[in-house]
Amino acid sequence: MGLGKDESETAERSDRSLSEDENRMNPDAEAKEKKGGGSGSSEDESNGLSVERIFEGQEVPSWRGQLTFRAFAVSFVLSVMFAFIVMKLNLTAGIIPSLNVSAGLLGFFFVKTWTKVLDKSGLLRVPFTRQENTVIQTCVVASSGIAFSGGFGSYLFAMSKRVADQSKDPQRAQVFKDPSLSWMIGFLFVVSFLGLFAVVPLRKIMIIDFKLTYPSGTATAHLINSFHTPEGAKLAKKQVKALGKFFSFSFLWGFFQWFYTAGDGCGFTEFPTLGLKALQYRFYFDFSATYVGVGMICPYIINVSVLLGGILSWGLMWPLIETREGHWYPADEGPTSMRGIQGYKVFISIAIILGDGLYNFFKVLGRTLSGLYRQLQDREMSHVLPIANGSSPKNPQVSYDDRRRTQLFLKDQIPTWFAITGYVTIAAISTASLPHMFPQLKWFYILVIYLFAPTLGFCNAYGCGLTDWSLASTYGTLAIFMIGAWAGASHGGILAGLAACGVMMNIVSTASDLTQDFKTGYLTLASPRSMFVSQVIGTAMGCVISPCVFWLFYKAFKDLGLPGSAYPVPYGIVFRSMAELGVEGISSLPKHCLTLCYGFFAAAMIINGFRDLVGKKWARFIPLPMAMAIPFYIGPYFAINMCVGSLILFIWEKINKTKADAFGPAVASGLICGDGIWTLPSSILALAGVNPPICMKFLSRATNKRVDGFLGS
Amino acid sequence: MGLGKDESETAERSDRSLSEDENRMNPDAEAKEKKGGGSGSSEDESNGLSVERIFEGQEVPSWRGQLTFRAFAVSFVLSVMFAFIVMKLNLTAGIIPSLNVSAGLLGFFFVKTWTKVLDKSGLLRVPFTRQENTVIQTCVVASSGIAFSGGFGSYLFAMSKRVADQSKDPQRAQVFKDPSLSWMIGFLFVVSFLGLFAVVPLRKIMIIDFKLTYPSGTATAHLINSFHTPEGAKLAKKQVKALGKFFSFSFLWGFFQWFYTAGDGCGFTEFPTLGLKALQYRFYFDFSATYVGVGMICPYIINVSVLLGGILSWGLMWPLIETREGHWYPADEGPTSMRGIQGYKVFISIAIILGDGLYNFFKVLGRTLSGLYRQLQDREMSHVLPIANGSSPKNPQVSYDDRRRTQLFLKDQIPTWFAITGYVTIAAISTASLPHMFPQLKWFYILVIYLFAPTLGFCNAYGCGLTDWSLASTYGTLAIFMIGAWAGASHGGILAGLAACGVMMNIVSTASDLTQDFKTGYLTLASPRSMFVSQVIGTAMGCVISPCVFWLFYKAFKDLGLPGSAYPVPYGIVFRSMAELGVEGISSLPKHCLTLCYGFFAAAMIINGFRDLVGKKWARFIPLPMAMAIPFYIGPYFAINMCVGSLILFIWEKINKTKADAFGPAVASGLICGDGIWTLPSSILALAGVNPPICMKFLSRATNKRVDGFLGS
Repeated sequence: MGLGKDESETAERSDRSLSEDENRMNPDAEAKEKKGGGSGSSEDESNGLSVERIFEGQEVPSWRGQLTFRAFAVSFVLSVMFAFIVMKLNLTAGIIPSLNVSAGLLGFFFVKTWTKVLDKSGLLRVPFTRQENTVIQTCVVASSGIAFSGGFGSYLFAMSKRVADQSKDPQRAQVFKDPSLSWMIGFLFVVSFLGLFAVVPLRKIMIIDFKLTYPSGTATAHLINSFHTPEGAKLAKKQVKALGKFFSFSFLWGFFQWFYTAGDGCGFTEFPTLGLKALQYRFYFDFSATYVGVGMICPYIINVSVLLGGILSWGLMWPLIETREGHWYPADEGPTSMRGIQGYKVFISIAIILGDGLYNFFKVLGRTLSGLYRQLQDREMSHVLPIANGSSPKNPQVSYDDRRRTQLFLKDQIPTWFAITGYVTIAAISTASLPHMFPQLKWFYILVIYLFAPTLGFCNAYGCGLTDWSLASTYGTLAIFMIGAWAGASHGGILAGLAACGVMMNIVSTASDLTQDFKTGYLTLASPRSMFVSQVIGTAMGCVISPCVFWLFYKAFKDLGLPGSAYPVPYGIVFRSMAELGVEGISSLPKHCLTLCYGFFAAAMIINGFRDLVGKKWARFIPLPMAMAIPFYIGPYFAINMCVGSLILFIWEKINKTKADAFGPAVASGLICGDGIWTLPSSILALAGVNPPICMKFLSRATNKRVDGFLGS
Repeated sequence: MGLGKDESETAERSDRSLSEDENRMNPDAEAKEKKGGGSGSSEDESNGLSVERIFEGQEVPSWRGQLTFRAFAVSFVLSVMFAFIVMKLNLTAGIIPSLNVSAGLLGFFFVKTWTKVLDKSGLLRVPFTRQENTVIQTCVVASSGIAFSGGFGSYLFAMSKRVADQSKDPQRAQVFKDPSLSWMIGFLFVVSFLGLFAVVPLRKIMIIDFKLTYPSGTATAHLINSFHTPEGAKLAKKQVKALGKFFSFSFLWGFFQWFYTAGDGCGFTEFPTLGLKALQYRFYFDFSATYVGVGMICPYIINVSVLLGGILSWGLMWPLIETREGHWYPADEGPTSMRGIQGYKVFISIAIILGDGLYNFFKVLGRTLSGLYRQLQDREMSHVLPIANGSSPKNPQVSYDDRRRTQLFLKDQIPTWFAITGYVTIAAISTASLPHMFPQLKWFYILVIYLFAPTLGFCNAYGCGLTDWSLASTYGTLAIFMIGAWAGASHGGILAGLAACGVMMNIVSTASDLTQDFKTGYLTLASPRSMFVSQVIGTAMGCVISPCVFWLFYKAFKDLGLPGSAYPVPYGIVFRSMAELGVEGISSLPKHCLTLCYGFFAAAMIINGFRDLVGKKWARFIPLPMAMAIPFYIGPYFAINMCVGSLILFIWEKINKTKADAFGPAVASGLICGDGIWTLPSSILALAGVNPPICMKFLSRATNKRVDGFLGS
């Protein structure tokens, strides 16, 4: 918990709860709705529609045939692109919306272009199939998943000296491990593949026996299926065009902004759109296309929650606490010191994130266990009464779609011994090698994690299948506290905790991502074997690409990770503070901070409970505590951007709902991707020492007079 | 010549020449085209369509009935609005596009709203007729015409001390007359009504006997006619909506910009969009919505000409001449001195304007005389051979439309004795009072002007009827040179010339405007009497509103009229320099300036001749010298805005030509009006001493470093 991905998952969760009564906002769900003619969920079948009947004439390639060179070439390009986008989001506000639609659209677009060119030149041998499309999608998701679970915006960067220096305890600041390309890639390689092997044996239980929904995976499959029907392809083409247009706009806008950023406090990101006083408390529209796009993808309630959180914290609480300077906290502490005002910001955020996370952990765990219990009971029942139970896979009443999908899903098996051997081998390597990277992380800590990890991975994959909500960072936080406490302060518990968090998060996050992918593959008749290979290749790509991209950012932007900079890496300090909290407890917090933390922790739980109590009708008007917590630390500026995005979508929906629904996600993806990709040339320019020529500065009238006098003399 | 209005008329002229082969760009012509179903030019009739048959069932109110209170209330509101817009255009770049469409649309919108409200409350007695609409249109045109012909951006401001101080001769700088509300209103009242009486006796000859086209007047009439058909009203409603939307946007954008202009060189108007070096030579996009709108209304060739002129002068010539500093002109002269680089800018502009103006003066004069000659011959012919000549007004073959229109046009007569008495009385008052205002302007100068004025007024009205091109400022320039030379330097020839220019321009400009209006009235069955009354009232309104609006600008913006400021009043210095040139000849110009002037004077003539020679097909690719001259003095920044407007329209036309044609002019009017109206609150804020809070400053990287050091210490 406490990470951007959670937010995006919160978005999806709230999506689902919204979509059930309103069917709003989830782009994938929309896509499914729009292209309903070609989609094939079981509801559709009850209407007499069957997807697989439409695709009946198309031969399904063999699993080797699904793994084409072009698919991986395209995947590589998209992986690099999404690594930049996810990294930028990681390092700015940490809110990562679902990029499935853009990945799907762009994958389709690239391969279509590719096949068209080859077709014209007479070189095309293999037509573009939806299985291949799924392979690309899977590979890109696996690869860009690492950009998130690699912890570049959280646990991994939390180990660095730059974050350690902001620690509340000067002595603790000595405990750090600065990022370096070599150990990051090594670390990712030894921890990222475990999740793959952990879930492979369970995929049949999840997908075929339990028939879990996996909303995101299902939506993606519908999108891919629809792309390969003629009508869907036409809409997809138009969507790609919209995406391309806004991609270019957003890219060029980023480029234009760059020229005016010669120096600190220069450029559009410091534009006092609401006045200088408001800017001081980070209320302004910073002209970033990214978060406008994010706001268009996230549900309204997320955007409103973030804004509310911003107003509550930066509009009310911090200015009030600042008036107590000298009483509540020493006046001589700098603005970045954890013993000063910064301490309130960070620890109150953590309190809310923990409160929300714990509440949802127990909620999802409860649902997982009760769901599991019912599934197992059903299974037993179906053995006892095979005729009475209509949902048995052997039942002849099962639909054509399900039969065909199950048949193909079971055709290419991955032997269980292979999965177990793989897991044990990698776990052994990992256990042996990790203590060399992190001397504080003893081998027995790792062994314990690896013993429990498959169970936790299963839990997370199952919960995600039910609720579409991955609890990866919650499990990560648990690892921080447990291993941190076990290691203790004297044995470098902070680093041990953070490293353990990485190990845990990678397994658990991969497990849920991959089961999602298997669901997509099931619905698009992609072979589990080709999916597995694609995941392995995608993960390997991610293990190299993500650290490299992070390294580029780290080297190019010298103030990365410092509060108030363009890349504040908000969760870096949050994770570090959690690790310190786990190791040494709650001493040395500024006055009244702990009381406030208790209050907000309780409030987060109560609000969540309230949301569940009042029912879906009213829950959509109650803000999400997790979303409210983010601006507490970094300020509400990105919330304003997100609300602008919401507003644009809202007006668009008022004017033309059909069009807004069909093109909104594409436009939003274009905005996010264009701005994200601009960071590539921008960081290269920074590395090459090319500085922007102009500074756009904002001065108050009085200061301006002084400056004019200074320049005139 | 040499005035914004000319440009707009050049636009219309080029419009016409374009519209004949392409039918592009003239908004009114477009409107006529679009609403062709309800329009009734003679071409339409040949297709069997008759406007007056459509309106047959509607009773035409008596001429008193056409003059309603609400019409003048709406006219007053619109007059104030347009006075601001025209004044802003006068004082910035001096390019005034045709605002007929906005006046028509807004007039329709206001009265429609008015009647709707009254209708609902049951108070509506008189329905809104197209005659009433014409009355409003006429009144607003008469009133906002004064904002232009009052010379606030040209001869009148040229008398002020602020312009005189920029004179090349320090001794001459003592000759000035600063604007003051009282003498400006008095001056306008004694000179503005003469034109009205001068053309009244000639209206039947122009409209019915000669059947002159008056393209603008005809287009406006078609617009008004179409508004009053059900289908036209529907389109008009949509256009008003588009206008309103962009009006609000442009107004709010102006408001937003204001906050960042605390101090000189602050704000969006100094945005180095193309870099700091380019800004220095005034190449930048200044984010002003006005000139984007102007660019959307003006034909492409105008925009391209302006940009070409800007590149030639500020991109090439001035930087080159600056390298000769110390050789061609003394290095110690300030940037505003006429003996320095400024001299080249102003006098080369004047040379081009004079060359273009003279060429067109003789061209239009030639066409006027030859047209007149043919008309008179035809007339004689028709007397000799009444049966052979089908175009005789008495001929029964004449169309229903023409018969009905002629009948109503001749119904309400204005006696010739009334017109002559009016002219003589006002001329007497004027001759007696003007020398009191301008002691340099002797009574016999005025008498001479008034003896020739009706002839020149007739010439201008006739030429305008043929070519849609008013030569008002050309006649004004002639007056400057003639009266200036007559009075001589020692007797304050500069002021005498400028005042004579005002007297001449007002008569000549009013004459052509009013005949246009009579044409509109003829085509909408408005009575000449109601038109005349409306013109008188409109002129009176203009004589009070325009000086007041100018006064507001003059008092609010302390740097109005200074080069490089937000309101440089470019034609102020141009007119002043012409007057000095007329009085003292060409001495004391900087080195080589005269040679360059000769060259550009000749080039302007040759390019114009070339345009006429090659035929319409190629002429539209040859730039207009008059348009090229404007940026020579004030710089190309507004040209960039205009080209952005062109580009927007061009892309819009590519995407959806029908929509662009129908809504382009409305959008453009919205942009111009919104920004223009924002100057009202902005000048009130300036007068009240409310200063903007923030300065948006643009510094080079090096300067920024120094400033940061200064602010940090």
